[in-house]
Amino acid sequence: MITREKEPPNLEMPFGALESFVTPTELFYVRCHFPIPKINEREWRLKVEGKVGRPFELTLDELREMPAHTILATLECAGNSRVFLVPKVKGVQWELGAVGNAEWTGVRLRDVLERAQISDNAHEIIFEGADNGTIAELPRPAGKVNFARSVPVEKAMDDVLLAFAMNGEPLAGAHGFPLRAVVPGWYGMASVKWLHRLIVTDQPFNGYYQSIDYAYWKRDENGPVLVPLAEMQVKAEIARPGNNEVISANSKYDVRGAAWTAAAVVTKVEISCDGGKSWSEATLNGDATENAWRLWEFEWKARAPGNYTLMARATDSRGRVQSMERNADAGTYMISHCLPIEVEAR
Amino acid sequence: MITREKEPPNLEMPFGALESFVTPTELFYVRCHFPIPKINEREWRLKVEGKVGRPFELTLDELREMPAHTILATLECAGNSRVFLVPKVKGVQWELGAVGNAEWTGVRLRDVLERAQISDNAHEIIFEGADNGTIAELPRPAGKVNFARSVPVEKAMDDVLLAFAMNGEPLAGAHGFPLRAVVPGWYGMASVKWLHRLIVTDQPFNGYYQSIDYAYWKRDENGPVLVPLAEMQVKAEIARPGNNEVISANSKYDVRGAAWTAAAVVTKVEISCDGGKSWSEATLNGDATENAWRLWEFEWKARAPGNYTLMARATDSRGRVQSMERNADAGTYMISHCLPIEVEAR
Repeated sequence: MITREKEPPNLEMPFGALESFVTPTELFYVRCHFPIPKINEREWRLKVEGKVGRPFELTLDELREMPAHTILATLECAGNSRVFLVPKVKGVQWELGAVGNAEWTGVRLRDVLERAQISDNAHEIIFEGADNGTIAELPRPAGKVNFARSVPVEKAMDDVLLAFAMNGEPLAGAHGFPLRAVVPGWYGMASVKWLHRLIVTDQPFNGYYQSIDYAYWKRDENGPVLVPLAEMQVKAEIARPGNNEVISANSKYDVRGAAWTAAAVVTKVEISCDGGKSWSEATLNGDATENAWRLWEFEWKARAPGNYTLMARATDSRGRVQSMERNADAGTYMISHCLPIEVEAR
Repeated sequence: MITREKEPPNLEMPFGALESFVTPTELFYVRCHFPIPKINEREWRLKVEGKVGRPFELTLDELREMPAHTILATLECAGNSRVFLVPKVKGVQWELGAVGNAEWTGVRLRDVLERAQISDNAHEIIFEGADNGTIAELPRPAGKVNFARSVPVEKAMDDVLLAFAMNGEPLAGAHGFPLRAVVPGWYGMASVKWLHRLIVTDQPFNGYYQSIDYAYWKRDENGPVLVPLAEMQVKAEIARPGNNEVISANSKYDVRGAAWTAAAVVTKVEISCDGGKSWSEATLNGDATENAWRLWEFEWKARAPGNYTLMARATDSRGRVQSMERNADAGTYMISHCLPIEVEAR
């Protein structure tokens, strides 16, 4: 793993190590905003509160006794590929590996919410993590802040999972032990780790990590408005060759990578070896699973020595095509345009 | 006037010059985010649009032909007194004079909105100014942004004025010619200058100047949430003596100042000459007018040579008392706690 920040740990998969559809847990990226909370499994509770008819708490054993479900979901950090932005912007300087695809096991959020009898006016469900700390830079609330994000009730009742296991093992501390949300199709910040509180609210939640952080500018008829980040954009990444790799001219090279989208499946990946002038279709591996990435490969031969700019471009079943241009309203997030990988053939 | 920024002009009244209940226009503070727009009076229109049954435009002559109303309203910049914050925070370093009380003449926003037939679902009215420019620091929308703020429909239908005159004269360029909003009781940023568009919306408006700028952290049961600044806090300011002024020991000194609040009147101003240990009531001048400040005075004699810390503390008819403590959740705004004025008696 590449260490992007030592403490709290922010670790990136070296994306050239991409081999398998399911990312091994030890290669799955770690994003922490605060030190990993030390949680005593027996004392921990999931509190369900707010606009509910019946607030209650669940122990980990009680959660494990509920009907369990296993899903595949790709999580990408909203700041993944930030190192490609020129000029450089603030935030962890992720390259390509703040993304992974795992098998998550837990209970459906819907099942928990139905038991709580949520209000007819419920608008969003807030996920609060046990992780907290102070934020230095203004504007920020005073004192300690817990990491928290929300999803609309419709999403909560659809496919959100409260996961206690990852790839068949109990969650590791860095991945949210004992419980995390998994919000399929959304950037990773929504899949709150160390989950300890579900708050049902009848208002749009405007917490720090939905406004100052993890938000972007959406344009409507009223001008640009600040909106929390949500769904992942359609995106393909090249795992091999790596940026600045030296390859052999006139030899076959197996270009490989992954592509993902939200609430859809990837239907096409195209590769350009000339900086976007011409494109050829890559081969998609395996079957398509909604909200899980697809691996792809493409056989390429650099016909002559020289420098080449490789790019991958994904299209999804909703007809969305990965953009060649950076969205300037996305600030330091959603780096989903086609990323140039420079190689030299000798 | 004290120049806080040369271009665009940001000018402050030297608060020691406070003499009259109505602030002379040439002493009224000027806050500009972008260069003052050059507006051709004959080409200018006020557009009324969004969730309305009948969108329309008004010329300045048409506005002047509508029933006119004159109100008194105190406007305070939300960053007024920022220079008192330790450690220093970003923003224009206002001292005490980014506040003024003027007589505003124009048409009621209600009269304009009734003509537009606003939707039953209308939630807020957005005021868009003609002033615009690019914002350097992330997070910010790309390209040019117009200054814009909103008020809830209830406030819009209550007492908001669309003013074309200030203190009996047409608005000066620096004060929003040809038209500005005047939102009584709210911090100055809501009283949008160079107004050219009213947009009725059924959503909470989350533009730049309601979220990244001009917002604070409100605490509720869901934790701190980012909320647009709105009503002014109850506040008294000392105009004389000035900070670090040298006065005569054992002589009478006429301590003077102003105090204001929102949707209420100031009922009491107390003065401390010992840094907040003991307090005495000041004399309130004139009658109380809602949303206009009240001037006050207090006769003081420094009994011995030495250093004294003066403070003023206001109470309003809603029972709110000016705080001794800075609200740490207010970020770089709402500097409304009791401010220490240091003087030396010789």
